[in-house]
Amino acid sequence: MINKLIDKIQKTKAPIVVGLDPMLSYIPEHIQKRAFAEFGETLEGAAEAVWQFNKEIVDKTYDLIPAVKPQIAMYEQFGIEGLKAYKKTVDYCKSKDLVVIGDVKRGDIGSTSAAYAVGHLGKIQVGSRSYAGFDEDFITVNPYLGSDGIQPFIQVCREEKKGLFILVKTSNPSSGEFQDQLINGKPLYELVGEKVAEWGMAHMGGSYSYIGAVVGATYPEQGKMLRSVMPKAFILVPGYGAQGGQGKDLVHFFNEDGLGAVVNSSRGIIAAYKQEAYAKYGAQNFADASRAAVEAMIADIGGALEAAK
Amino acid sequence: MINKLIDKIQKTKAPIVVGLDPMLSYIPEHIQKRAFAEFGETLEGAAEAVWQFNKEIVDKTYDLIPAVKPQIAMYEQFGIEGLKAYKKTVDYCKSKDLVVIGDVKRGDIGSTSAAYAVGHLGKIQVGSRSYAGFDEDFITVNPYLGSDGIQPFIQVCREEKKGLFILVKTSNPSSGEFQDQLINGKPLYELVGEKVAEWGMAHMGGSYSYIGAVVGATYPEQGKMLRSVMPKAFILVPGYGAQGGQGKDLVHFFNEDGLGAVVNSSRGIIAAYKQEAYAKYGAQNFADASRAAVEAMIADIGGALEAAK
Repeated sequence: MINKLIDKIQKTKAPIVVGLDPMLSYIPEHIQKRAFAEFGETLEGAAEAVWQFNKEIVDKTYDLIPAVKPQIAMYEQFGIEGLKAYKKTVDYCKSKDLVVIGDVKRGDIGSTSAAYAVGHLGKIQVGSRSYAGFDEDFITVNPYLGSDGIQPFIQVCREEKKGLFILVKTSNPSSGEFQDQLINGKPLYELVGEKVAEWGMAHMGGSYSYIGAVVGATYPEQGKMLRSVMPKAFILVPGYGAQGGQGKDLVHFFNEDGLGAVVNSSRGIIAAYKQEAYAKYGAQNFADASRAAVEAMIADIGGALEAAK
Repeated sequence: MINKLIDKIQKTKAPIVVGLDPMLSYIPEHIQKRAFAEFGETLEGAAEAVWQFNKEIVDKTYDLIPAVKPQIAMYEQFGIEGLKAYKKTVDYCKSKDLVVIGDVKRGDIGSTSAAYAVGHLGKIQVGSRSYAGFDEDFITVNPYLGSDGIQPFIQVCREEKKGLFILVKTSNPSSGEFQDQLINGKPLYELVGEKVAEWGMAHMGGSYSYIGAVVGATYPEQGKMLRSVMPKAFILVPGYGAQGGQGKDLVHFFNEDGLGAVVNSSRGIIAAYKQEAYAKYGAQNFADASRAAVEAMIADIGGALEAAK
């Protein structure tokens, strides 16, 4: 799956991911009204609005992008109905040949991580049959529990040809509280990065490993350092746009081959119609605003990578 | 909710939690067969088997125990149908007046943690109405992202009178890989413990805080130390029984008032009928075996606490 991601990045010339993180407040009135008219102001109605919103954005952007990253929390907040919309979104994006990165940040002791791995990346045996639960292509994973919490995910990835992005240095303001603490002079995130590199070297997809890392766009210096610690890891970079990252900050997350990173933007794309720059589209044409924002993001990052050559 | 947990512990004289983590391999043939006869060898059939298994164990043990801890991964592995069984289990346990600790180990950047908090502990606004998604009483949370990933959970707990158990030192063999790393001479888990204590002191339910911690039974020395670092935090202690912890190892997780910890056992209770000690019950009476195992666990821990007085 890492090879498919790389192929698609090369074809689209877009090392980006659209984050499908639909807060109800991002969803235009007319979509909410239509969903509530059909299902009432219920969890089912909210889930329908989320799904219709996602579908229109995917329909208007899928030809420009290699991948999407639905954040499961934004669906889980609506309980079972929300998770149905998550699954529908995953399946629809895969039918459009997009690579789907489930941003689930799971992680637990070994036997429990194995259950998460099966549910999100693998297949579960039921009697004589087997079924995929959520079936994303990649998921994000939390490393706090150490190797034996990670290995079950790696094992399922090996079997299913899927991949992981393991949290190393996250994009949020307080990520340094634990992640930046020095251990023998090295920050914890570097130690985690070294482990990701080690796990990754043993699981290469081709020129890159299918065990990748998450490093926030908001920490470009750390990104540069971690790039050299994990040369064969693809880095998923959240925090572009709304969280403050810009194209020029991101060049050092990439390798000299122009690969090695995919930059995520969520709000900046899916709620673009709410920004002044895209207000002309109006709420009715919100997905056209998203397409324009995707084009601008590709140009910003492409330009920065070109300028850095 | 921390006060309800304490009340129930005092009434039952059982500082224990039953972990409802149903692997299909734990579920007796006759339950699986009945479920598959009705729904086929499908995810729905598996979820029905899980639910029937849980229900029987809860019916046979609820009067002896204060709380249950369903591990959501064991449901999530069956996709949407599994999560329906999770929700059904949460609701059923609450109808039996059990305190429900959702073992979800979520944690993310602020806005995303807020969505998880709403989905598991709070209510989501949909138009003019509001709904609870999963509605557990407590959940477990991962601290790797730092304070701003934790605060949204605390805020919802304050509004809803619910609670958290934050991972400090986990029970698995490789938990030390990152958690034991020394920072200015102190292990990372101690630093996280100090933060839990600080967050907790600002959010007291009564004599204890509603912001608690997870510390594995498999690390009694660290438990003793963390007990003094977080005097007002309730400690959720996994790893008893199947993972190797015993009553005598656990006395130092408790305070002198005999409170301050709840010990979880999952496999040791729910799959008790598979152990030699309870084999006489047979698979048909698996829930009676669970009841006997609960009684033995209460005696083991109660005896150890008595002996330590």
